[in-house]
Amino acid sequence: MKSGQTRVVIENVQPEINHGKHAAKRVVGQKLQVTADFMADGHDVINAHIKYKYGNARSWKYAPMELINNDLWGGEFVVEKQGHYTFTVEAWIDYPLTWQHNIERKIADNQHVNVELLDGIQYLETAIKKAKDEKDYLNGLIEAFKNPDQYEYAISEAQSKRLHDIFHANPTKEFKTVYDLELPVYVDRKKALFSTWYEFFPRSTAKEEGEHGTFQDCLDVLPYVKEMGFDVIYFPPIHPIGTAHRKGKNNTTTPTPDDVGVPWAIGNKEGGHKDILPELGGFDDFKAVVKKANELGIEIALDFALQCSPDHPYVKENPSWFKWRPDGSVQYAENPPKKYQDIYPIYFESKDWENMWDEFVSIVLFWNDLGIKIFRVDNPHTKPFGFWEYLIAEVKKVDQDVLFLSEAFTKPKTMQRLAKVGFSQGYTYYTWRNNKHELIEYMTELTQGPQKDYFRPNFWPNTPDINPWILQGGNENLYITRHMMAATLSSNFGMYGPVYEQIDFTPFIGKEEYYNSEKYEVRHWDWAKTNKLKQLITRVNQIRNEHTAFHFTNNIDFCHMDNDQLLAYFKQSEDGESNILCVVNLDPYNKHYGWVNVPRQKMGLNNDQPLRMMDLITGNSYIWHDEWNYVELDPYQVPYHIFSVQY
Amino acid sequence: MKSGQTRVVIENVQPEINHGKHAAKRVVGQKLQVTADFMADGHDVINAHIKYKYGNARSWKYAPMELINNDLWGGEFVVEKQGHYTFTVEAWIDYPLTWQHNIERKIADNQHVNVELLDGIQYLETAIKKAKDEKDYLNGLIEAFKNPDQYEYAISEAQSKRLHDIFHANPTKEFKTVYDLELPVYVDRKKALFSTWYEFFPRSTAKEEGEHGTFQDCLDVLPYVKEMGFDVIYFPPIHPIGTAHRKGKNNTTTPTPDDVGVPWAIGNKEGGHKDILPELGGFDDFKAVVKKANELGIEIALDFALQCSPDHPYVKENPSWFKWRPDGSVQYAENPPKKYQDIYPIYFESKDWENMWDEFVSIVLFWNDLGIKIFRVDNPHTKPFGFWEYLIAEVKKVDQDVLFLSEAFTKPKTMQRLAKVGFSQGYTYYTWRNNKHELIEYMTELTQGPQKDYFRPNFWPNTPDINPWILQGGNENLYITRHMMAATLSSNFGMYGPVYEQIDFTPFIGKEEYYNSEKYEVRHWDWAKTNKLKQLITRVNQIRNEHTAFHFTNNIDFCHMDNDQLLAYFKQSEDGESNILCVVNLDPYNKHYGWVNVPRQKMGLNNDQPLRMMDLITGNSYIWHDEWNYVELDPYQVPYHIFSVQY
Repeated sequence: MKSGQTRVVIENVQPEINHGKHAAKRVVGQKLQVTADFMADGHDVINAHIKYKYGNARSWKYAPMELINNDLWGGEFVVEKQGHYTFTVEAWIDYPLTWQHNIERKIADNQHVNVELLDGIQYLETAIKKAKDEKDYLNGLIEAFKNPDQYEYAISEAQSKRLHDIFHANPTKEFKTVYDLELPVYVDRKKALFSTWYEFFPRSTAKEEGEHGTFQDCLDVLPYVKEMGFDVIYFPPIHPIGTAHRKGKNNTTTPTPDDVGVPWAIGNKEGGHKDILPELGGFDDFKAVVKKANELGIEIALDFALQCSPDHPYVKENPSWFKWRPDGSVQYAENPPKKYQDIYPIYFESKDWENMWDEFVSIVLFWNDLGIKIFRVDNPHTKPFGFWEYLIAEVKKVDQDVLFLSEAFTKPKTMQRLAKVGFSQGYTYYTWRNNKHELIEYMTELTQGPQKDYFRPNFWPNTPDINPWILQGGNENLYITRHMMAATLSSNFGMYGPVYEQIDFTPFIGKEEYYNSEKYEVRHWDWAKTNKLKQLITRVNQIRNEHTAFHFTNNIDFCHMDNDQLLAYFKQSEDGESNILCVVNLDPYNKHYGWVNVPRQKMGLNNDQPLRMMDLITGNSYIWHDEWNYVELDPYQVPYHIFSVQY
Repeated sequence: MKSGQTRVVIENVQPEINHGKHAAKRVVGQKLQVTADFMADGHDVINAHIKYKYGNARSWKYAPMELINNDLWGGEFVVEKQGHYTFTVEAWIDYPLTWQHNIERKIADNQHVNVELLDGIQYLETAIKKAKDEKDYLNGLIEAFKNPDQYEYAISEAQSKRLHDIFHANPTKEFKTVYDLELPVYVDRKKALFSTWYEFFPRSTAKEEGEHGTFQDCLDVLPYVKEMGFDVIYFPPIHPIGTAHRKGKNNTTTPTPDDVGVPWAIGNKEGGHKDILPELGGFDDFKAVVKKANELGIEIALDFALQCSPDHPYVKENPSWFKWRPDGSVQYAENPPKKYQDIYPIYFESKDWENMWDEFVSIVLFWNDLGIKIFRVDNPHTKPFGFWEYLIAEVKKVDQDVLFLSEAFTKPKTMQRLAKVGFSQGYTYYTWRNNKHELIEYMTELTQGPQKDYFRPNFWPNTPDINPWILQGGNENLYITRHMMAATLSSNFGMYGPVYEQIDFTPFIGKEEYYNSEKYEVRHWDWAKTNKLKQLITRVNQIRNEHTAFHFTNNIDFCHMDNDQLLAYFKQSEDGESNILCVVNLDPYNKHYGWVNVPRQKMGLNNDQPLRMMDLITGNSYIWHDEWNYVELDPYQVPYHIFSVQY
C-alpha cells in the first residue's frame, strides 16, 4: 500500500497513446505540450512538474506545470535532439505555498497571524537549505516572524512574490505522487513534419518519344523539379519487373512484347528488391541521381512494396514465404472478382517469419546504405502491424534519419494504427475532401483530435492510382486551388506529375484512374512546357519554404466566413513569428466575396489593432483596420490570397 | 517478441477506467456491454470473444463479439453475482471463416473452386475434433470436397449456414491476440442502482412541540415514510454532539444552554462515532428502529462524517490525528474568512495514519454489525482518495452489501474520482439543473459519457444544506415537478423532508439555505399533514417501484419537442419489457403544448405502429397512431405525464 500521506492523484496524462505503448511524435526543436488532471482532497495548494529525459540519460529534467482550469494542468518542454524521449508527471501538496496562500487569506480578513508566522518558520528553514542565494533574506525573515516588533514587515514579506518564488523554485515534493506510466516521445528530423514531394516515373524521362527513360535522363529532370520548389522526389519501384502474367497497357492481360509491365510487380530472373531494372541503368547511374538531387537540396524517396512477381528470386529461394495451394500453385493476389496474377503476396504467417522479417529489414538498409533516407511504403495495411513496428524500429536503430510514408488509403483506425507503430507520415483522405464543410471537419479531426500527436498527414491532390473525380472534370483554376490547399493546409504534401501540372491526361471513363496510365506504360513528357498552374505551384512552394507558419500542420484556425465557397484559415508558426491568413475561392468558375475576421488574439492583439496584409502572390498590400474585412476572389485571376499578416 | 504470425491488434476496450485500475460498476442481473477496436492487415475474417470470470474462478467463460461498424466490435454478458468480475477480450483471424468467405465470393464470380474445396478439408478435419455432433456431416463433406461428382453438393454446403455455425462455434483461435489488461467490474446488490431516499432529523420527531425527538418517536414516523414509497431513510449523525464552541440557532456563535448543537460536530465526553446521543435513546431503541424499518422494507442509512468536536475522545486519545499549531492549539476547520471552531478536521497526514485508517474502518463495521448497510458519507472530498479506496474495500471484504453515497458537491473530476475509488452512489448537480437545456446536457453527460460505467447519480431536489434558489421562490407545482424529475430521470433519488413535501420553511434571505434550519435546532412537524404534493410524491414513487424502466438511469432517450418548456424522455428497462414516456411542463405557471415523437424503433416498431399510451397518474389512456402526437400540460392540473407505452 502506498503511503496514506500521499494525497494527490493523477489522471488523463496527455499525450498518452495506448497506455504509453506508442510514442507521441515531434520533430527537433518542437515543443511538447503535456497536460494532466491533478486532484487532491480539500483546498491545499498543488504544485507539479513534468519530468523528462532523452534516451537513457541517468537523470531527469523538470519543467513546471500550471493550472489551466478545472483540475487540468499543463506545461511544456522543447525536444532538442532526434531520438527517444521519455516523460511523466509528478504532483504534490506544496506545504510552503499552502501556508502562504492561507496566511494571505487570513491577513486579508484582518486576522492577527502571529501563530501562523511561527508555523511558517519551518518552511523558511527548509528553503534556506535549497536557496543558498536567499539565505540572508530568509534568516532575516525567521527573526522577523518571531519578533512582534517586526510584525508589519513579517506579514508583508510573508505574502511577497519573492517568498513565493523561492518556495516555488525549491519544492520539497514531500509525499509526491508520480504518474505510474513513463510515456514515450519519438523525435524525428524536421523533414518528417515539413516536406514537399514530387512523384514521377523515371522511365518516362527519355528525350525521345517511344524510348525508355533512364537514370541518366532523370538527371536532366532534377532541375525541373527543383525549380518548382520540391524537396523530395519519390520514384515508383525501380526494380526488375516480372514477366509472368505481365500486364499490358491499361491493365489488360494481353501484353505485347513491347509492354514494360507494372513497376510494383517486382522481381524477375534479373533480381528482386535489391536490384535495379536494367533499362533504368546501373547502380552508378542511380548513385549519380541521388548525388545530384542531394546537391539540389532534394532527397530521393524510394517505394517499398513488399510483394513479388511470380519470377521473383524469393519464390524459389524461400518458398515458405508464399502460400501454396493444394494443387501446388501459389495463391496470387486477388480480391474476388479481381485477380492480380502478376503478383504473389507475401505469406506473413510463414513459420519462417523471423528470417523473412530480417530479410525485409535488410532491403531497407540496403538502399539506406546507398543514401536513401525516405521510403514510401506501398499498401502497408496488407502486412501485419507488428511487422512494421519491428521493421521501423530496426531501421531507426541504424539510421534515425529514415522516414516512412504510409500509403494506406483504408479505414481510419487502420491508418491511425500504422502511424502509431511508427510510420513518420501517412497519406490521407484529402484527395476526396472538396467542399468547405468536409475540409474543415477533416482538418479539425487531424489537428485537434488524438491523432494530432502521432499521425502526420501528407496531402496529395492526385497519385498514379487516383485521378479523383473532381479533377477529371476540373478546369485549371481547380488544379490551382487543389495544389494550393494541399500545400498550405498540411506541412507535408505531394503531387504526382507532370500529369498534374500539365493537366495532360485522358480520363478513364467511369473510374477514378488515369487512362494510358504510367503504371502500365512509358509516357513522354515535354519537360519544358509551362503554364499558369506551374507558375503558381512554384510560387506557393516558395512561399511555403519562406514562411515557417507552413512548417507545421496542427497550428491552424479556421476563420468564420459567411460564404460557403470561401475557405479562410490562419496559421502561426510555433514561435509566433510567422502569421499567415489564407483565403481560397473553392468555386473554380465564379467570383465570390465575403467578410473575414483575422484571429488577432492569436498574435496577442486587440480587435482594433490595424494589420498590414501582404499578399504573397501578387505583392499587393492592404491595411485592415476593422474586425471584419472584405475579400473578393476571381478564380480566373488568382483563386486565393496568401497573406503575410504584419503588425 | 510476440509471434509475428499474430495479426490482430486490439485497442480501445471499454469499459476501461484509468487503465483498469478502477472497476466498472453494475448490479446483479445487469448486462455488461463490452466494446473494442480490432484491426488486422488485409481482408481476412476476424472473430472475437469476451472472456470473463467471477472472483478467483480458475476458468474463464466466453461471450461472442460482433462487428458493430468501422472496426468497432461489441458483445455482452450478464453479471449474476455480487462481487468482483474480471474481463478482457481476445481476437483472431478465423481461418475457417476466412476460407468460407473467400469461396463464397469466388462461387459468386462463377469460378471453379475445386482447389479451394481441397484447401478447405483441413478446416473440416479440425472441426470434427471439436464438433462431435456434426462428425458424420463433416466426414461426408470431406468426401464431397474431394469428389468431382459431388461438386454441386460440395459448393452448396461450403457456403452453408450450417457449416458457418460449426466453424463459428468451434474456433481454434490460432495466433490469437489477447488484450494485455484484465479489467475489473464490481457488482453490487440492486439497491446500488435503484433506491428511494428520505432524509429526516430524528430529533424533530417528538409528539410535543419543544421536546427533543427520540428513536421511540421515530418508530411512529416510519409508516409515514413507508406510505410515501421510500425505501431508504437517511439519518444525519446520531452521535453525541460537542459542547465546546457549540453553534446556536441559525449558525450563531452565541448559543443558549437550550441549544442542541449541530449533529455533524461529533463527539463529547459521552462518546464519539461509535456512540449514540443520549437524548435520542440507547442502542436498544436504535435497534428497534432498524428492525421496524426493515420490516417495512426500509433500510436505515447512517451519516459517516469524519470530523470531531473539540470534546471528541479522539482528541485526547489520539492527539497525533489532529494538526497542532505552534501555540499548542489544534487547527480548527476554516475556509477564511469562515471559521468552524466547533469542528476539528482529521489530520490525514499524521504519521499514525495506518492506525487511524483502521479505526475509521472499525466505525463503519461497528454500525454494520448493528445491521446498517448504507452510509451517506459527509464531504468525502476533504479526505484523501486513497483513504476511501482502502476503507470501502475493507468494508466490502466483510459485507459486500454495504453501499456508500458520496456527499461531494464539488468539481466534476473530484466527484468522478470518488466514484472510481469505490463510492456506490454520488450526489449530483441536479439540484441546480433547472431548464430544459441544462437537464438534457447534464443527463447526457451522466448517461452517455465515460461516467456511465462508474458514477451512479443520486438526484436530490433539496438537502438540509441546500435550499435551492428555484425552490425558495417556487409554487407547489414546481415542487411537484422537481420531485418527479428527480424520481424519473435517475433511478437513485432522495429528498429531505418533511420540509420538502410540506413546503414549510422561511427562506434564509440571500443564501441557498433554510432559515431556522434543523441543522441547528429541533423542529416540530405535523406528520399527519397532507397535500397535493405529497399525494403526487406518493404516486410517482409507487410508479417507480412498479415499472422497471425506472430501475435504471442510463436507459434514457430525450425526445425532440419544439417547446422549450416541455421536456420529454423515453425510458426502457434493460429487458425491453417496460417502456415509459415522460413529458414534463417545466413552467410552473403556464399551460404548454407541443408535439412529441415516441422513439418506436427502441421497441422494434415501425413509425406507423399504433401505441396505447396509459397515463399512470390519471389513468387516462390514448391511442397514438401518428409519428408526432399532441401533448398539453396545465401545471395546475398535473404538470407531467408518465405514460406506460403499450403496443
